[in-house]
Amino acid sequence: MSLDLRVYLVLDPAHTGGRSPLEVAEAALRGGVTVVQLRWKVGPLREMLRWGAALRELCRRYRVPLLINDRADVALALEADGVHVGQEDLPPEVARRLLGPRALIGVSARTPEQAQAAEAAGADYLGTGSVFPTGSKEGARLIGLEGLRTVARATRLPVVAIGGVNAENAAACIQAGAAGVAVISAITQAPDPEAAARALRRAVDEALAARRLEG
Amino acid sequence: MSLDLRVYLVLDPAHTGGRSPLEVAEAALRGGVTVVQLRWKVGPLREMLRWGAALRELCRRYRVPLLINDRADVALALEADGVHVGQEDLPPEVARRLLGPRALIGVSARTPEQAQAAEAAGADYLGTGSVFPTGSKEGARLIGLEGLRTVARATRLPVVAIGGVNAENAAACIQAGAAGVAVISAITQAPDPEAAARALRRAVDEALAARRLEG
Ligand code: NI
Repeated sequence: MSLDLRVYLVLDPAHTGGRSPLEVAEAALRGGVTVVQLRWKVGPLREMLRWGAALRELCRRYRVPLLINDRADVALALEADGVHVGQEDLPPEVARRLLGPRALIGVSARTPEQAQAAEAAGADYLGTGSVFPTGSKEGARLIGLEGLRTVARATRLPVVAIGGVNAENAAACIQAGAAGVAVISAITQAPDPEAAARALRRAVDEALAARRLEG
Repeated sequence: MSLDLRVYLVLDPAHTGGRSPLEVAEAALRGGVTVVQLRWKVGPLREMLRWGAALRELCRRYRVPLLINDRADVALALEADGVHVGQEDLPPEVARRLLGPRALIGVSARTPEQAQAAEAAGADYLGTGSVFPTGSKEGARLIGLEGLRTVARATRLPVVAIGGVNAENAAACIQAGAAGVAVISAITQAPDPEAAARALRRAVDEALAARRLEG
């Protein structure tokens, strides 16, 4: 599956502002989200599996890859397209061994060293941040646009910017070298998730077009 | 690998009374533990992987199977012998599909219905309890020796008794139909883990011998 990172939705079904996570996901997909990552931090795994199976079908209908945060066994069980792992999670080379050559494997990388290690380990893309301050991820260290640019220059892998990204600052991420932007609450807590996704998609598409013209 | 459930150690490296988890594990193995399950509830996964790799080697030296609580991907990464899953964890049929026909798969089952479902799903053994009151697992519902007996009679799978088991009450578990006993703190918090394991092993062996004579 080819990798379109333009608008990358991180979805925690426990945090969709009291709305049905599947309805929020479908609204986001209608709005133009290009990747969905399922993240699940607390609660029974079987609930995630039931919920993930429905999300799996939904993403297939929209031809958008579904990635699972951290757990390669859940990715296998759900026939998801891959996993996203942090620096303290399952190592990407282990994820690759478990999931095979066609799986999509993303790694959180905040420094050039982490980016190069992930690239050597066979990652398909990097998640880099926090670019801007954010309430979603307490204690996430801020790297700023300059940190994003430094990572993007250090690797041949596509980089998705994460952390406090919204429709207003998405273009700056693309200008700093990102292939796309990852958001959590900017979509899942938005009054209108479809409109929020659409605004992000438009901002990213315009910035990518501008970058191509400049390039 | 054949399955000897006589003394089943559940090891949480975060709870070994301030001692090195590997030293506690080796003492327990010297004392006669026949299965080790690695349980890890909090903290970075990579720490569990580093730690689990050392435990993997230790268990191999003692020819004792190593099982991983819940995570089939960690079992694959560590080349462990299998997994133990609860009723809300990865379903046993999914674990079987991921780990293959030779893996050992245990399921927590407190009722005959759960036991029969686990058997149908391809489990190799059941963990049944809490047989006695315990401080290790808050909120674990008590089923007593009668509940243990009911489950053991409802299945052809070997059953390991868990929850408040010690060298004094282990024989009663075997008499109720258990193939062995699982302990956490009775070994890991004991002043002398090797002696604690040895006392449990002796109690279980004597009770199994008595049961064979009676049978
Ligand atoms: Ni703990």
